[in-house]
Amino acid sequence: MQGQAQQQAYDRGITIFSPDGRLYQVEYAREAVKRGTASIGVRTSDGVVLAVDKRVPSPLLEDSSVEKIHKADDHIGIASAGHVADARQLIDFARRQTQVNQLRYGEPIGVETLTKEVTDHIQQYTQVGGARPFGVALIVGGIDNGEPRLFETDPSGTPYEWKALAVGADRGELQEFLEENYDGDADLEGGIALALDALASVNDGSLLPSEVGLATVDVESESFEQFEQDRIGDHLEENGLLDDGEEEDEGDE
Amino acid sequence: MQGQAQQQAYDRGITIFSPDGRLYQVEYAREAVKRGTASIGVRTSDGVVLAVDKRVPSPLLEDSSVEKIHKADDHIGIASAGHVADARQLIDFARRQTQVNQLRYGEPIGVETLTKEVTDHIQQYTQVGGARPFGVALIVGGIDNGEPRLFETDPSGTPYEWKALAVGADRGELQEFLEENYDGDADLEGGIALALDALASVNDGSLLPSEVGLATVDVESESFEQFEQDRIGDHLEENGLLDDGEEEDEGDE
Amino acid sequence: MQGQAQQQAYDRGITIFSPDGRLYQVEYAREAVKRGTASIGVRTSDGVVLAVDKRVPSPLLEDSSVEKIHKADDHIGIASAGHVADARQLIDFARRQTQVNQLRYGEPIGVETLTKEVTDHIQQYTQVGGARPFGVALIVGGIDNGEPRLFETDPSGTPYEWKALAVGADRGELQEFLEENYDGDADLEGGIALALDALASVNDGSLLPSEVGLATVDVESESFEQFEQDRIGDHLEENGLLDDGEEEDEGDE
Amino acid sequence: MQGQAQQQAYDRGITIFSPDGRLYQVEYAREAVKRGTASIGVRTSDGVVLAVDKRVPSPLLEDSSVEKIHKADDHIGIASAGHVADARQLIDFARRQTQVNQLRYGEPIGVETLTKEVTDHIQQYTQVGGARPFGVALIVGGIDNGEPRLFETDPSGTPYEWKALAVGADRGELQEFLEENYDGDADLEGGIALALDALASVNDGSLLPSEVGLATVDVESESFEQFEQDRIGDHLEENGLLDDGEEEDEGDE
Amino acid sequence: MQGQAQQQAYDRGITIFSPDGRLYQVEYAREAVKRGTASIGVRTSDGVVLAVDKRVPSPLLEDSSVEKIHKADDHIGIASAGHVADARQLIDFARRQTQVNQLRYGEPIGVETLTKEVTDHIQQYTQVGGARPFGVALIVGGIDNGEPRLFETDPSGTPYEWKALAVGADRGELQEFLEENYDGDADLEGGIALALDALASVNDGSLLPSEVGLATVDVESESFEQFEQDRIGDHLEENGLLDDGEEEDEGDE
Amino acid sequence: MQGQAQQQAYDRGITIFSPDGRLYQVEYAREAVKRGTASIGVRTSDGVVLAVDKRVPSPLLEDSSVEKIHKADDHIGIASAGHVADARQLIDFARRQTQVNQLRYGEPIGVETLTKEVTDHIQQYTQVGGARPFGVALIVGGIDNGEPRLFETDPSGTPYEWKALAVGADRGELQEFLEENYDGDADLEGGIALALDALASVNDGSLLPSEVGLATVDVESESFEQFEQDRIGDHLEENGLLDDGEEEDEGDE
Amino acid sequence: MQGQAQQQAYDRGITIFSPDGRLYQVEYAREAVKRGTASIGVRTSDGVVLAVDKRVPSPLLEDSSVEKIHKADDHIGIASAGHVADARQLIDFARRQTQVNQLRYGEPIGVETLTKEVTDHIQQYTQVGGARPFGVALIVGGIDNGEPRLFETDPSGTPYEWKALAVGADRGELQEFLEENYDGDADLEGGIALALDALASVNDGSLLPSEVGLATVDVESESFEQFEQDRIGDHLEENGLLDDGEEEDEGDE
Repeated sequence: MQGQAQQQAYDRGITIFSPDGRLYQVEYAREAVKRGTASIGVRTSDGVVLAVDKRVPSPLLEDSSVEKIHKADDHIGIASAGHVADARQLIDFARRQTQVNQLRYGEPIGVETLTKEVTDHIQQYTQVGGARPFGVALIVGGIDNGEPRLFETDPSGTPYEWKALAVGADRGELQEFLEENYDGDADLEGGIALALDALASVNDGSLLPSEVGLATVDVESESFEQFEQDRIGDHLEENGLLDDGEEEDEGDE
Repeated sequence: MQGQAQQQAYDRGITIFSPDGRLYQVEYAREAVKRGTASIGVRTSDGVVLAVDKRVPSPLLEDSSVEKIHKADDHIGIASAGHVADARQLIDFARRQTQVNQLRYGEPIGVETLTKEVTDHIQQYTQVGGARPFGVALIVGGIDNGEPRLFETDPSGTPYEWKALAVGADRGELQEFLEENYDGDADLEGGIALALDALASVNDGSLLPSEVGLATVDVESESFEQFEQDRIGDHLEENGLLDDGEEEDEGDE
Repeated sequence: MQGQAQQQAYDRGITIFSPDGRLYQVEYAREAVKRGTASIGVRTSDGVVLAVDKRVPSPLLEDSSVEKIHKADDHIGIASAGHVADARQLIDFARRQTQVNQLRYGEPIGVETLTKEVTDHIQQYTQVGGARPFGVALIVGGIDNGEPRLFETDPSGTPYEWKALAVGADRGELQEFLEENYDGDADLEGGIALALDALASVNDGSLLPSEVGLATVDVESESFEQFEQDRIGDHLEENGLLDDGEEEDEGDE
Repeated sequence: MQGQAQQQAYDRGITIFSPDGRLYQVEYAREAVKRGTASIGVRTSDGVVLAVDKRVPSPLLEDSSVEKIHKADDHIGIASAGHVADARQLIDFARRQTQVNQLRYGEPIGVETLTKEVTDHIQQYTQVGGARPFGVALIVGGIDNGEPRLFETDPSGTPYEWKALAVGADRGELQEFLEENYDGDADLEGGIALALDALASVNDGSLLPSEVGLATVDVESESFEQFEQDRIGDHLEENGLLDDGEEEDEGDE
Repeated sequence: MQGQAQQQAYDRGITIFSPDGRLYQVEYAREAVKRGTASIGVRTSDGVVLAVDKRVPSPLLEDSSVEKIHKADDHIGIASAGHVADARQLIDFARRQTQVNQLRYGEPIGVETLTKEVTDHIQQYTQVGGARPFGVALIVGGIDNGEPRLFETDPSGTPYEWKALAVGADRGELQEFLEENYDGDADLEGGIALALDALASVNDGSLLPSEVGLATVDVESESFEQFEQDRIGDHLEENGLLDDGEEEDEGDE
Repeated sequence: MQGQAQQQAYDRGITIFSPDGRLYQVEYAREAVKRGTASIGVRTSDGVVLAVDKRVPSPLLEDSSVEKIHKADDHIGIASAGHVADARQLIDFARRQTQVNQLRYGEPIGVETLTKEVTDHIQQYTQVGGARPFGVALIVGGIDNGEPRLFETDPSGTPYEWKALAVGADRGELQEFLEENYDGDADLEGGIALALDALASVNDGSLLPSEVGLATVDVESESFEQFEQDRIGDHLEENGLLDDGEEEDEGDE
Repeated sequence: MQGQAQQQAYDRGITIFSPDGRLYQVEYAREAVKRGTASIGVRTSDGVVLAVDKRVPSPLLEDSSVEKIHKADDHIGIASAGHVADARQLIDFARRQTQVNQLRYGEPIGVETLTKEVTDHIQQYTQVGGARPFGVALIVGGIDNGEPRLFETDPSGTPYEWKALAVGADRGELQEFLEENYDGDADLEGGIALALDALASVNDGSLLPSEVGLATVDVESESFEQFEQDRIGDHLEENGLLDDGEEEDEGDE
């Protein structure tokens, strides 16, 4: 009955300050992010890496159904963690911004600019009544003027720039892993290895290709590339992280 | 009096996050889905199968009154489970989207595109105040570029792609049945057999033709086909699932 | 004081889901339907029958004041049960729809189409805030392409098609009576007999003509016909249901 | 303090259903009607009678200040009971409707049509949020195609047609009096006598002309006529109901 | 703490019916009227008298600052009691109505017409949400077709016509005084004497000219006239009500 | 925890009447006025004086930062006390009104007219929902047709005219001082002396020039003049109120 | 459970007055400011200095990610403290105002004018319902007509002008430091030294260049200049505040 009472209390209300200056709805939205599986971003000397945990709860659920890596523009990818339906809204918003920028200024949008347009959009949902905050965090990675850039948007609408970060489940453990192992001089290969290593570290040390999503934006081509499962398998094998098959591989397309 | 108190609490409020990052109204809407009879979707090598439990609570209620399979477009069918009136709203929305797509792009809408337009619509009702979420889940099945596709929309507005799935009453039991018996190489006939078998499994092992709705979209014709009762009867008989008549068959048209 | 407290709780709120997936406001609206006197619909081989209990609480209240059978179009009649003022709103809505259809398509609206336009309208009042649901159920009967059709709209906005049904007070008892006595091959005469029999069954076995409303839509003429009291008296007499006058007949017009 | 707590609860809220299908705000509005002094309507063979109790709480308050009988159109009068300010709003609405009808159709509005336009207006205030129901009941009397008609509008927005009725204070007692003494064959004189008799019955058996409002609409002239005090006095005297002056007559014009 | 709890409860809510059919917000607004100093209106054979208590809480506050008598039109004056800022809104509304009437119909507005336009405006604030009622009562006095008329508007939006009335503080006592001493044949001089006598009766029997506001509208000139302090002093002296100066006269112009 | 509970209660609600006819939000707004430092206005035979306490809580805060005296028009000055941000809104509103008046009528606005436009604006925030009252009081002083006038606007939207008044902290004590020492025949010099004397009386008897704001509008020039610190120092010295420097004088510009 | 109850209470409500005249939501917003790291502003004889603590919680978070100093116009800089996403909204608002001013008047906006346009915007969020206040304080520094000016905007919407100030964490301690050490005659070098000294005083006496943001607007050039890390390092070294490296310097770009 007590739990019941607590639940009822959260079926009403809008986002306002608590006496200690906190916005509880925003903090609860951060909890919604933690309920999603992990996503990781790594910035390297020649590009950015996005890697996500995309394990599915049922063998009949298509792996592709778990959309956690999205192409926002030719040179920008976005990984998400948290409330899936909310993520889709923000990705749609981001894509519209890239098109608006192209139409208005005749050139692709910057990674930082795009991130801040998204966070300003998110902020509105934390200040003006009649809606709840977005329960999702995004990792926005791409190339700005030849430089790899990696940003996070959180449910408060704050933009952060990172060398490497994790969002979603196990964020604490994963972020610690990244801090210990990040090498600012590493290239894309090193960045992929670090990201996969981190994901495996919270997954009994090994991964199935179908459980991972992987994408990069490299400095040279300035283009977003999402990896097929066999290439993911190769990377896992190279890094000694390939699951030896105790769990059945669905082998789906 | 306690039950009373609980009920009263749910006559007010909007959808916001709980301290552990959950959206209770969305979770309660999922309960509304479970209150509806089961619907099943199966993807096969040459098409998709939609099968629904359409038993009626009264012999005077027309079987046709239980609308759980809907044609969304020539090549797309939708099965629903949950709050019937809400389902009608979403089906209407989906049909308008197929027409808009035809008018705007001169070609039929994709199954995935349609699904995501529906889920984006659903998401709005979970974030913006002044309305409750939709208490219904849809199974959207059809042919995209010659490939059979099968999607689910849930009350949170998340799209899922499945090989086979069940929504509504007995979802847990049915999904387990599908996982154990799904064969990725089966054809439409096999898919129909699996779907009917699953429905029968939670219904004392046999079914009356009038209690079942059945439809397919096959890869060859790319056209949605809803089955008449006699054809359903044939399929039940072939699969040894035909009810032997202990319950009176209404024999209506 | 306890009853008081309960009442107060229902003077506020909007329609949202309870933890078990129910919409209490819709369920309470169904209770409002039960507070109204009964209405019955019967589909026969050559038309539909609408019969209503229109007993009045005072001898000074005009029988005609109890409007429970309404002509929606030449070929469609509607019987209502529940909150009278709400019924009027829906009847007005239905009549506007028949006119819109005539203007737009140059042909009369279908019985099923009309029913679903009404239920979609009802559904809006259960999902969007700022208004309560309609506390009324309608029986929509008429001829679609030469076929008699009989529908129900309930406060959730769900359309049902019936062979025979009762709404309002004593629904359970009346529906059971109909199930036991319904004969799918009966003609209009048989349908009228069944409907009057049912009404009498919950009214000490006999009825006064002034206590009953009766209307039909027959397949041949495709036209709605409301019966005068003397014709109702004849039907009651034929079926041995005429009240022998222990209660004073007002003899009004 | 308890009464206090109850009062506070009613300073908020909108009109929704209770678990037993009732609309409390509408029922409370009916209580507001009972707080007003009584109004009576009687239909006779050659017209309708409206009679109202217009006793004032202070000798300095003008009798004319108690406006309970209103001319809605040449052939329609309205008596009200309950919240005076609300009555004025509905009377204004009714008058606008008579004008709109005259302009649009070039003929006077029917008594039944006018009543239903008023009740439909009332119903809106019981279903859509942001306002409370009207705390008033109206008796609408007039001539439709040569026939005297008498209607009631109640706070739920339900129209009733009556032979004779009372609204406001002592409704139960007055209605019983009318039921016992109503004679369907009586003419206007008889109707006036019945109405005054009824009012006197709850007022120690006699009345002062200044305490009564009286109006008729007769079939012949089809015109509303409000009676002056001396004519009311004559009618009281004829019927042996004239107060013998133990209470001081103000003698005010 | 209890008082505290009560206060808090009244910082929210809108105006709805209580179970016994009362509108508490309107009743509380009447209390706001009683918190204001008294205003009196007297109708005489040759005009109307408005008299107000305008004692000020500080000798430094200008007597003229207490605006309780207002000219609404050449032939209409208004005295107010209660929430001063609310009174100003209604006076402004009344003045606009007089101008609109002049523009639209080319003649001055009637006293009764003006009163009812004001009360209809007041009523809206008691029925539609989003605002509180007006906490003020007005006495509207003037000449209609050569006849002196005297009306009251109360917070419910009910118009009353009076021979003589008091609103504001001590209403009960003052009204009783008026009832005992009102003479329907008195002229303006008699009316002024009665009004001042009444005000003095609740003020130790005497008044300072600066404590009183006085105005008349006489039948002959049909024009509103507000009295200067010396004329008020003369009237007080004539009637033996002049304060003998135990309290210091400010002597302020 | 109790204080906590009280605080929470005031984070919701709109302005409505309490059972004793009070508007608590308006009364609380008056408390907000008392939280501000004092402002004083004095009307003299040849002009009005505005004097304010502008002590700052930190020596690093610019004295000029405390804006409590504002020029509204050439001939009108306004002193404020209470919530500073609210005061700015009202001053802006007042300035717009002076411009509108100049544009519309080609002449400067009257002091009384301006005051009442401001109070009517304030009143709206106490009656219509969706906003809180203004937590500020203004002293509006200026010349109307050669006469010095001095008004107050309070949070209820009531305008008052004064000979001399204080608003803000210590209002009770200051008003008493003014009442005891006000001389209606004094000139501007006398008025300045009275105002400074009053401010010093609640400040240990002496003042620093930097702690005081001073302005006048004189009858002759009809122009608002704000005093520099050295002139304020001269006035303090002349009146024996100059602080002897025990507290450090910032000596800033 | 108690903490829980408190939290729930702050998930609803709008900004209204408490009985003692306080606006709790505004006070809670001030707490949100204190939750941010410190920002400092110092006005000197030849310009203004803005210095901010920009320590990051993770070595992988880019220092540049912590945006606390913003260029508002060529001659105006803004430092912020508190809720980062809210700060971005206000900075955007400020930048739009500078552009509007340039377009409308053809000249750069004044520092004071800009500050007050921002505070008026902030005030709206504390008075009108449907949104929460801004949880951020800004320090606005620049050159007005050759004079250095330094302002603060607080969550109530009050503008303050300062010689030197701190906002955010440790405000009390920092402000005290500034009061003790501020020298009105110091030049920009002195102002930078004071600001860095203050920041170091609450940070164990030394700082890393990467932990500090620094900017100036000097009187001569009237242009905003943000300092690179090496120049910051030089200033820290000159003032003996450079961290000796016990904490690892990220050495990023």
